[in-house]
Amino acid sequence: MGVLVVGTVTLDTVETPSTRVEDVLGGSGVYAAVAASFFKGTVQLVGVVGADFPHTYTDFLHTRGIDLQGLKRESNGKSFRWGGRYAKDFNVRDTLFTELNVVSDFNPILPEAYKETPYLFLANNSPVLQLSIIEQAANPQLIVCDTMDFWINEEREALEALLARVDILILNDSEALLFTGDSNLMRAAQAILRYGPKRVIIKKGEHGAISATESSFFSTPAYPLTRVVDPTGAGDSFAGGMMGYLASIGDTSEEAIRSAMVYGTVVASFNIEDFSINRQRDVQFSEILSRYRELQEAVRF
Amino acid sequence: MGVLVVGTVTLDTVETPSTRVEDVLGGSGVYAAVAASFFKGTVQLVGVVGADFPHTYTDFLHTRGIDLQGLKRESNGKSFRWGGRYAKDFNVRDTLFTELNVVSDFNPILPEAYKETPYLFLANNSPVLQLSIIEQAANPQLIVCDTMDFWINEEREALEALLARVDILILNDSEALLFTGDSNLMRAAQAILRYGPKRVIIKKGEHGAISATESSFFSTPAYPLTRVVDPTGAGDSFAGGMMGYLASIGDTSEEAIRSAMVYGTVVASFNIEDFSINRQRDVQFSEILSRYRELQEAVRF
Repeated sequence: MGVLVVGTVTLDTVETPSTRVEDVLGGSGVYAAVAASFFKGTVQLVGVVGADFPHTYTDFLHTRGIDLQGLKRESNGKSFRWGGRYAKDFNVRDTLFTELNVVSDFNPILPEAYKETPYLFLANNSPVLQLSIIEQAANPQLIVCDTMDFWINEEREALEALLARVDILILNDSEALLFTGDSNLMRAAQAILRYGPKRVIIKKGEHGAISATESSFFSTPAYPLTRVVDPTGAGDSFAGGMMGYLASIGDTSEEAIRSAMVYGTVVASFNIEDFSINRQRDVQFSEILSRYRELQEAVRF
Repeated sequence: MGVLVVGTVTLDTVETPSTRVEDVLGGSGVYAAVAASFFKGTVQLVGVVGADFPHTYTDFLHTRGIDLQGLKRESNGKSFRWGGRYAKDFNVRDTLFTELNVVSDFNPILPEAYKETPYLFLANNSPVLQLSIIEQAANPQLIVCDTMDFWINEEREALEALLARVDILILNDSEALLFTGDSNLMRAAQAILRYGPKRVIIKKGEHGAISATESSFFSTPAYPLTRVVDPTGAGDSFAGGMMGYLASIGDTSEEAIRSAMVYGTVVASFNIEDFSINRQRDVQFSEILSRYRELQEAVRF
């Protein structure tokens, strides 16, 4: 089975208390696609970059087996640039700048070869754009979307229309509370389900993630890391790892999604250990399995 | 096996966005002892109250089978009174007042019948007082203590001396970071172990709890509650439930402590559903087992 990832492909500048990196490979589409590429099956990436986008970055994505037919290069434009700074405990991130550039009027058209792809991950984006992808998909078996506070505040109506069309909504705990106006995460999860998705997955950063349907509840801790270098992209790595695993086994049952969330957690944990996708470059699948088993041991009672 | 609980027995005033209760039964010793009393075995309570302490409250503790030989009533004093107010999301609590009264110069002397009790829970208190209890215990098999920011800041030296004598330290995540000066909870846990305890258990409120030893890591979610009325005493209910379960099976192995933490989590979840210990009054053991099994299902993958 294959995964279609629609998301941003960016040049990021990240400051942590100890280091600063500039114009490194980033973006929700990149993190998700690289995470999915650890698993068996094709990974297709839809996004846009400018003429300034380094070929070494696209070359790297190629080496991961990621299909870039859907990655448009605008010869007259500049790539999306984002800058962020983390405080000491990594729980607070300030956005330093956001230059949308080529992303600002990107209307993705799915290549023919992508239309039949069964597993869709629509990374955080305008819900209007996310809906347009769903319209173009011929035979989706699982539609998963992410969102963020900006769209909750600015595009509420389109976001609600989107939720009626997706199988799973993934979002942060603060976003779940914002969207529902509730102060209790469990009530917020149930309220989100009433908008249409069969399942909501709520990311809680260092506290792990939960999944709720009308009849099930699952909770996984984050992988217990002692070394945090850069959390940028952790949420997209989580979602991408989850999608990659699901597509590799061609199963969307409760059992499969629970395992997939833990695989996503593990891939996200590697992502956090270095800037950009640097740590992912040398992670072996045996290391992913090893952390998966550590998490099994960590929750056993 | 029996549990000895040393903690406060107080009259609490609690304000939530919807309700205010005044002079209700509270205190770390009460919450822990009531939690422990759900399990087989004797529960002994050491503490002090004033002449104003309602007999209906001590009567209730008697009905739970809690041994009150160690509960001193100062005929010339007033009971410890505490007042707190919760914000809408229950994550922020303001202390409105703290009147130590009879607690301020309490030096507990263990009754003879308590000295051989094998399971000791020393609820949050001055580390000097906690150490004096350990000195009086004749044959402790498991010494568990709690602490808080006040003692970390004001009695650091005594606290370090205490840590060299206890088996398990229980504290909140913010306190673990404060004590170690670290910003990463996993590193903080390892740093705490170097002070002497064989195990550290870190409470994370709605995010559950973790346990770390030199060679093990365990994580349990909180019970997913949709209705939060009053979180006061949740941490002490967690610890007391844990101790009660451990004493009931007479086992302190890794396996036993994992189960005990989940039982503690469940008892704490009931505590949160009403003010004071009101919810605990009618909880049946079958309900505790039921939530325990729900948590088993919630983490299964």
